[in-house]
Amino acid sequence: MPRFPRFLLAVLAFALPAAGQLRAAAPAATTVEQWGTYEIALQGPADGNPFLDVTLRADFSNGAKTVTVDGFYDGDGVYRIRFMPDTTGRWTWFTHSTRWPLTQKRGAFTVTAPSKGNHGPVRVANFYHFAYADGTPFKQIGTTCYTWTHRPAEVEEQTLATLAASPFNKLRMCVFPQTHGTSTMPPTRFPFAGEGTKPDYTRFNPEFFQHLDKRVGQLRDLGIECDLILFHPYDDDHIWGLDTMPPDVEDRYLRYIVARLGAYRNIWWSMANEYDFVRTKTEADWDRYFRVVQAADPYGHLRSIHNGKVIYNHNQPWVTHVSLQNGLATTDPGKIQLYRDVYRKPIVVDEAEYEGNHIYRWAQLTSREMVHRFWACTIAGTYAGHSEFFVQPGDASEFVWLGQGGVLRGESAPRLAFLRKIMEDGPATGIDPIDKWWEPRVGGKPGEYYLWYFGHEKPASWTFQLYRDGIAEGTTFAVEVIDTWEMTITPVSGEFVAKKKDRYSFVDAAGRSVALPGRDGIALRIRRTGGPAGEISDKPPGY
Amino acid sequence: MPRFPRFLLAVLAFALPAAGQLRAAAPAATTVEQWGTYEIALQGPADGNPFLDVTLRADFSNGAKTVTVDGFYDGDGVYRIRFMPDTTGRWTWFTHSTRWPLTQKRGAFTVTAPSKGNHGPVRVANFYHFAYADGTPFKQIGTTCYTWTHRPAEVEEQTLATLAASPFNKLRMCVFPQTHGTSTMPPTRFPFAGEGTKPDYTRFNPEFFQHLDKRVGQLRDLGIECDLILFHPYDDDHIWGLDTMPPDVEDRYLRYIVARLGAYRNIWWSMANEYDFVRTKTEADWDRYFRVVQAADPYGHLRSIHNGKVIYNHNQPWVTHVSLQNGLATTDPGKIQLYRDVYRKPIVVDEAEYEGNHIYRWAQLTSREMVHRFWACTIAGTYAGHSEFFVQPGDASEFVWLGQGGVLRGESAPRLAFLRKIMEDGPATGIDPIDKWWEPRVGGKPGEYYLWYFGHEKPASWTFQLYRDGIAEGTTFAVEVIDTWEMTITPVSGEFVAKKKDRYSFVDAAGRSVALPGRDGIALRIRRTGGPAGEISDKPPGY
Repeated sequence: MPRFPRFLLAVLAFALPAAGQLRAAAPAATTVEQWGTYEIALQGPADGNPFLDVTLRADFSNGAKTVTVDGFYDGDGVYRIRFMPDTTGRWTWFTHSTRWPLTQKRGAFTVTAPSKGNHGPVRVANFYHFAYADGTPFKQIGTTCYTWTHRPAEVEEQTLATLAASPFNKLRMCVFPQTHGTSTMPPTRFPFAGEGTKPDYTRFNPEFFQHLDKRVGQLRDLGIECDLILFHPYDDDHIWGLDTMPPDVEDRYLRYIVARLGAYRNIWWSMANEYDFVRTKTEADWDRYFRVVQAADPYGHLRSIHNGKVIYNHNQPWVTHVSLQNGLATTDPGKIQLYRDVYRKPIVVDEAEYEGNHIYRWAQLTSREMVHRFWACTIAGTYAGHSEFFVQPGDASEFVWLGQGGVLRGESAPRLAFLRKIMEDGPATGIDPIDKWWEPRVGGKPGEYYLWYFGHEKPASWTFQLYRDGIAEGTTFAVEVIDTWEMTITPVSGEFVAKKKDRYSFVDAAGRSVALPGRDGIALRIRRTGGPAGEISDKPPGY
Repeated sequence: MPRFPRFLLAVLAFALPAAGQLRAAAPAATTVEQWGTYEIALQGPADGNPFLDVTLRADFSNGAKTVTVDGFYDGDGVYRIRFMPDTTGRWTWFTHSTRWPLTQKRGAFTVTAPSKGNHGPVRVANFYHFAYADGTPFKQIGTTCYTWTHRPAEVEEQTLATLAASPFNKLRMCVFPQTHGTSTMPPTRFPFAGEGTKPDYTRFNPEFFQHLDKRVGQLRDLGIECDLILFHPYDDDHIWGLDTMPPDVEDRYLRYIVARLGAYRNIWWSMANEYDFVRTKTEADWDRYFRVVQAADPYGHLRSIHNGKVIYNHNQPWVTHVSLQNGLATTDPGKIQLYRDVYRKPIVVDEAEYEGNHIYRWAQLTSREMVHRFWACTIAGTYAGHSEFFVQPGDASEFVWLGQGGVLRGESAPRLAFLRKIMEDGPATGIDPIDKWWEPRVGGKPGEYYLWYFGHEKPASWTFQLYRDGIAEGTTFAVEVIDTWEMTITPVSGEFVAKKKDRYSFVDAAGRSVALPGRDGIALRIRRTGGPAGEISDKPPGY
């Protein structure tokens, strides 16, 4: 393997017990951890066109259930089947294929308990939120590096190092290369055989996907979810033919990537970035991609699609959560909440505009405003995404985090780490709007926990007053003042004791207010310390 | 007809040429105007249960097309078929029935041009807007009187008189009575035979529906669209059984009311008010009602449903436009725009809270705030709805416009008339957001017409600056300052000449600003007066 010394090294460093990559037809491992990737490698025919001619699948069974998984051809006569078991214990497998050397193979292995930090794949939880399969809440703080896996190895390693030191637990990234930033770092791998500009749609390029597998695995090992963008409109000159595949090739591509990466627990499927800017496809095509992916993926990984200027119908049943671009919906605390009621699914504003100094206004946010928008989304019971576009003086190639990765130049990341800590210290079930038709600035869990965010308002004080749900006469609360930029949490001395004010709200029995610093970006954290719990009359769906 | 002298009078006064109401089996008229109601009355069996036993329909044909219309039993052995022709010229009809006396009847008539003020039924136009069938834009200024047709005749007449003098061109109203306000004005008619509290679900009460027909016809003659609410949750004690019909009765009721009222050009179908508060039904039921109505209605009248706290999936294909309750979405100019992109249908906030002095906060708006919310919706390219709940001192029955009709006590109506005039003087295609991802306060038609609304902001001046779409160097504009409450329109002297400022916007070549009065509720109307037109780069869907 002289071509990929770094790659091989990385594989050895990160390989799962049974990863088997580049170990053709080696015996499969006898153990794998729960939600790990169990891989079977089989030697099979290399003649003809194995991508088209050969089908391979395996049934995995633990006696209680059977999961059928598609295999894939990985070049050089090697076929692989990857499986992510969701329960511990003994599993057996049995293959089916259109070719004799690959059929009726069988084996067994034992699934051990997950290792530390492995909580399984992320799922929708409590309608509007996320949790890992083991029940651990997943508090999303996302970022985007569209095509970091198409850069020189040292840049890719730098991106991983940056991520490792960042607060981000989800990364949006494209499978395909993009035109932007290619002047100094042109892509060297393409998903199909043939030249990059003359793709042979009948054959995949295993090397391309092996590299992608590796990078996705590295994200997994950093505890980062990979929101993998399957199509995009960024082949600006349409030279690579990746937005003009015939439908049967599109479907084969989708099934191939699901077969390769579905067994990675940190995979999320994003059908596209700015899907409506892909001018070669109709909405019916996007519907179809969802259905193809859904049918191919036995694990039900999260599925979404991200808009340019036309919002997809996220009410479609195959959409698990909403991935949005709309900066204006995040300018005011709570505004984004409107989308929750519309879709009844988790809302992730993956693009609330970007930090940066770009000539275009979609990447001109100050770091403060980026942090503000995360808070504005958080207290609305939704999630936000970060990225940045800081062009360095004299850098004609515009090597920026959004496109290529590398290093972060903005100042939001530490503040987002601070926010993530607050989110993780908050209600396990997530933050929901408290009085959503009337007061946009407060989210939490009625009677227990409140985050009140003033955004760009700079009040000098706040009179203790909370909506009735979950509160009774005598419920007591502790209040802290949070400076979201300075990253300080200042307890307010003394306890607040709830006293009914009117039909809708409770105030402090002593009429106390909270003094505020009169600055931008101030929040309150209010937690119940004791006293009776009140009734919850306005239950959100699912409560 | 000794029981209904007023009714009969009204019928005679308002009857169409072929209305035929209470004229059993009279010969049908020979002419009807386009979008009028052509009615055929036939004598048939009165024995057994005609509502269940007899089906009747007629094919209407003008040679080019055939429209099949269901008839209905109207009591006393009289069966009626009503038809709304959409083209002028000669039409013929031919009946089909399960009973001999009603089948193979035939006739012909001539459809004449519509009379003055008859523009046909209202349809969706330009994706987000409405127009009558003849192309005349319909600029919706709605109000709600839920159960005004269940009141004493003099109160109902008073309601009609109030409406006649009002700006409202759409009225939301319920078919069924509601509990509220019944202490002094109990309902006297119920849709089913039997006692009100002991409905015989197998038989309709023709008298109930005849009364409804009459009132809907009177609204039509006042130029008011009737947004007819087919179910509601306001039978507080569930004594009338109107929210607990078996499914077959629900479907029969829907088909019956469509057969009766589908030929009224001013009908809109609203499946429910606060549909999710009807605790006896599931979302699948609501889907079904839509489909039953859609299948029964040969004219495709507008169809919607109105939410309590759970928003219906308005992306369903049978929803023609979105009828919303969400006051908080209307507090800031343009905020409501988010729903446009989600549904790609007209958005009507039928309940943006109400003017009033109610003990509940959903009816405590000041008149100024009511007007503000209409403006906040209008410039977002959406529509709003009015109602009010002003309880008079000592009125234990709470006789208010929202429930019972009568008179208006708030101060918003003249301001809404002022707004309607501005809307009707505006672009025929409707007001759309101009720069929707960035500037919520302005709507209009790019390069031609802008309404900029400051809401509760009170700036002392506004620097002329408009988004690039439709503008070129040298495009000239006239600016007017509108006081939405004082109902004044003050022209700003001189012309504004567009000069490119940056990638996104044009300013005035002389750098001029507009002085503003520094009050609440100020808007600008900016209209192109000359100069070149610019390109439109950010085209909304359908442009």
